[in-house]
Amino acid sequence: MQNLLAKKGNQLLVSRENQQEDTIIEVKGCTIGGNEIAVIAGPCAVEKEDILREIGFKVRAFGATMLRAGAFKPRTSPYTFQGLGEKGLQILAQVGEDLNMPIITEVMDTEDISLVGDYADILQVGARNMHNFSLLRKLGRTNKPVVLKRGIAATIEEWLLAAEYILAEGNSAVILCERGIRTSEPWTRNTLDLSAVALAKELSHLPVLVDPSHGTGVRSLVKPMAKAGITAGADGLMIEVHSNPEKAWSDGEQSLTPNDFRTLMHELRPVANACGRRMK
Amino acid sequence: MQNLLAKKGNQLLVSRENQQEDTIIEVKGCTIGGNEIAVIAGPCAVEKEDILREIGFKVRAFGATMLRAGAFKPRTSPYTFQGLGEKGLQILAQVGEDLNMPIITEVMDTEDISLVGDYADILQVGARNMHNFSLLRKLGRTNKPVVLKRGIAATIEEWLLAAEYILAEGNSAVILCERGIRTSEPWTRNTLDLSAVALAKELSHLPVLVDPSHGTGVRSLVKPMAKAGITAGADGLMIEVHSNPEKAWSDGEQSLTPNDFRTLMHELRPVANACGRRMK
Amino acid sequence: MQNLLAKKGNQLLVSRENQQEDTIIEVKGCTIGGNEIAVIAGPCAVEKEDILREIGFKVRAFGATMLRAGAFKPRTSPYTFQGLGEKGLQILAQVGEDLNMPIITEVMDTEDISLVGDYADILQVGARNMHNFSLLRKLGRTNKPVVLKRGIAATIEEWLLAAEYILAEGNSAVILCERGIRTSEPWTRNTLDLSAVALAKELSHLPVLVDPSHGTGVRSLVKPMAKAGITAGADGLMIEVHSNPEKAWSDGEQSLTPNDFRTLMHELRPVANACGRRMK
Amino acid sequence: MQNLLAKKGNQLLVSRENQQEDTIIEVKGCTIGGNEIAVIAGPCAVEKEDILREIGFKVRAFGATMLRAGAFKPRTSPYTFQGLGEKGLQILAQVGEDLNMPIITEVMDTEDISLVGDYADILQVGARNMHNFSLLRKLGRTNKPVVLKRGIAATIEEWLLAAEYILAEGNSAVILCERGIRTSEPWTRNTLDLSAVALAKELSHLPVLVDPSHGTGVRSLVKPMAKAGITAGADGLMIEVHSNPEKAWSDGEQSLTPNDFRTLMHELRPVANACGRRMK
Repeated sequence: MQNLLAKKGNQLLVSRENQQEDTIIEVKGCTIGGNEIAVIAGPCAVEKEDILREIGFKVRAFGATMLRAGAFKPRTSPYTFQGLGEKGLQILAQVGEDLNMPIITEVMDTEDISLVGDYADILQVGARNMHNFSLLRKLGRTNKPVVLKRGIAATIEEWLLAAEYILAEGNSAVILCERGIRTSEPWTRNTLDLSAVALAKELSHLPVLVDPSHGTGVRSLVKPMAKAGITAGADGLMIEVHSNPEKAWSDGEQSLTPNDFRTLMHELRPVANACGRRMK
Repeated sequence: MQNLLAKKGNQLLVSRENQQEDTIIEVKGCTIGGNEIAVIAGPCAVEKEDILREIGFKVRAFGATMLRAGAFKPRTSPYTFQGLGEKGLQILAQVGEDLNMPIITEVMDTEDISLVGDYADILQVGARNMHNFSLLRKLGRTNKPVVLKRGIAATIEEWLLAAEYILAEGNSAVILCERGIRTSEPWTRNTLDLSAVALAKELSHLPVLVDPSHGTGVRSLVKPMAKAGITAGADGLMIEVHSNPEKAWSDGEQSLTPNDFRTLMHELRPVANACGRRMK
Repeated sequence: MQNLLAKKGNQLLVSRENQQEDTIIEVKGCTIGGNEIAVIAGPCAVEKEDILREIGFKVRAFGATMLRAGAFKPRTSPYTFQGLGEKGLQILAQVGEDLNMPIITEVMDTEDISLVGDYADILQVGARNMHNFSLLRKLGRTNKPVVLKRGIAATIEEWLLAAEYILAEGNSAVILCERGIRTSEPWTRNTLDLSAVALAKELSHLPVLVDPSHGTGVRSLVKPMAKAGITAGADGLMIEVHSNPEKAWSDGEQSLTPNDFRTLMHELRPVANACGRRMK
Repeated sequence: MQNLLAKKGNQLLVSRENQQEDTIIEVKGCTIGGNEIAVIAGPCAVEKEDILREIGFKVRAFGATMLRAGAFKPRTSPYTFQGLGEKGLQILAQVGEDLNMPIITEVMDTEDISLVGDYADILQVGARNMHNFSLLRKLGRTNKPVVLKRGIAATIEEWLLAAEYILAEGNSAVILCERGIRTSEPWTRNTLDLSAVALAKELSHLPVLVDPSHGTGVRSLVKPMAKAGITAGADGLMIEVHSNPEKAWSDGEQSLTPNDFRTLMHELRPVANACGRRMK
């Protein structure tokens, strides 16, 4: 398949041919893409400040390096909770600053890039927007790192070319994130495709994360798939954690409790080490 | 499945429960959603004015009711032809006016809605943007009809709820368009899902089009699938036609020649009539 | 894609290159593959003789040309009804003889071919067995026509090559049947792929049926998809009909009542005629 | 999803509810399902005795516990190499005996069970036959362990219920094997679904293998996916190894060389240990 990617241009900016060494992205002293595994944890959405603070405090204590939570939420129905918007960004930024953790949050609209960029350290493009080329292009003109989630039915080539849209505009701080593709399996929300992680690492120098929370949609699968993701070559994880999953405003079924998260971190460490990777 | 849709709100604006009679959308004397089959034809992209004029002139002569062509093109790679932008809109509008045909073209970015709306009669949301909720919401605040293509892996429920985003903002002139979903079949570009057409007509009052050009990606399949689409209940067709498919700047493999299009119209008429539908 | 098929051997027995004219299969005065549309109807499974007789009598009166029902049923769970076996074959053969209708039934095991062949006029290979090459090969050594259903995730090439297994052993009476492929759409049991019908007709001389009952799994979709299937080029239909779908031992949700079937036949006739096809 | 499985019968023989402790299968002193990782390696097909002997000798030296190779090969086209049949079984049995390794080979036809059982220690049901219920039932009446590969589009529930067919007939020595499902990704032959491994281990007491060779179809992906498979909870691996992949009669693209296999074993050991598993 390297030939296929090469055919589209031996000079693809995302390709290993163009850059042999791994890209390492540093934000406030935290790195993604180097030897150390990055662990980004937090709730699906910003709800209330005290809840976010409690979750952030715990995940940091158990080994998370960055904090995630959504203020603008892409939702299938217009009638479900759409996120707190700018108020959510303010809460997230405050908690991130207090805990000294870089924060990651989603941007859904070209018109919001500037606003979200004022608060967030890393901007996330969700799976539904992976083919929103206008958004990609404009993110390519910012100086913020971008997490680019793979589309729910995107091929690996399309995912890498979506990243290329950002790099082509001058922003080379792109972090790929595999979060599962849609198949006919009804017992999982998506089918997490770890071969895409291994392939992306082989073909590209960009860092690759795995999101086993969205990638499976099933709490009991988050731990084995997080560990398998690192073994397959991922540089880090995005994990949904909520202090009270049953009462989460969204994605409760796939959220770990802080205690689950501690167990995951505990079991992950020897696996990461066995793969030659460090953890904080 | 009606129960499922109902569960999300018996009052869904797109549902048959909310409105029993079919929505009919009228633009410059042409209708979509009534008894008459709407036929929207034209090249994939606006290239040169004389080519577009030639194509438009012929498809109108053979029965097309509206003209389509892209000025902003969503392309997998940032290095392929991205459309002529505003210049393309100007050409399209001029040819539409000269031929007295309403024009349809894609809008990819919330920031372009106003610009594209200045030229086009109907705005199209492409498959890749079906889950671009910001775009949907802002189109819901315009007074232009919107063609909403089904996402490449979207469920029928997600497609109807994407339409709901537009209606919820006040714009009820939404036209659904089935254009194929991604499967593991390598001999077609997509798998055209005509059961989605029949289901959308059963569950919703909105007009439904079929795009057999993108839906198959294979020229020889456009004719049988166009006819089958109407038989399955579609209110109209979107067909790619190019006077010289081999030289088209995009999508040549699936474009009909004007002569192919004439044959299609000729064979379609008795089928439409057998289904109780009129054609121009 | 013709090139691909050709590459596997220009001499493929199933290909149009090998035989230009359509294969027509005749059984007891009924044909499949000629100008007349073949309509095969009946319940999912043989249950009781009087029920089968009632259904057969009605579908024949409304235009069905052949009778179908299963005696050996492939079921996902070993604990659900598996069919009546030889007793079911006896009932089916008796009813077929009394009504003067050829009968079609599934064979699941190489060891049963001789037994099922003693009763049935046409042997059916189910979707789950499309890649049971031993079964295909041994059916190729019988002199009974074979209906070959497309596998739930089979490509069109694999389907044609499965037919080739039968022809290669000397039995050229193969009837292809599209019955839907598995996708991520939850509102239908399968996604009926009518482009596969059009492609199979283009690439092969074998007759092609459509099974909109299994292909959709939804009663209200059977009628529109049956009509669309004929428009796409199919030579006939397989339709599940039960006099009391709520009490059917299997597949009740997708079965038509005899009255539904009458309406379907009534609406199908003008559509078939508009496509240049006759109906009994 | 446990509820779903339970609904089909709390007493499902394959379920954890029915048997809490892991099933351990022992063949000639080798175990599958216990703490030790089982490694089954060998070429796709039996070709010549000296080649098989060379491969077997090397994989045994590098840590393989069992030898695999096909004598009856399911092939998409009837015109490609179909396996050596009984002669292949003889060669495989001889090499297995000489190397003191249990042998695994595929059985495709109910009529061949007795023959294949005379030579093989473990019988394999291929992905294409997972829904060949006659084959499953008759294997349930033998006393040989059965490797049951997941169908190319089978749900996890269907896979477990296929195993149930074998257990229901009295044979409880079933080994599940995940080998990838068909998706729209063109750069891999299949998409290896490691969440299916984790789910199968959670819901069932049966041992689970991973086949990263067929599961990816890409040599460079075999190593990362083998390691990730063990991390996700698999009890063992099936790996295609050929001393000269370029000249293999089938599946050369995904076969490891013996040296690749040595490297895999070397890297796998610390990962298995980090997961609390032993390796030979």
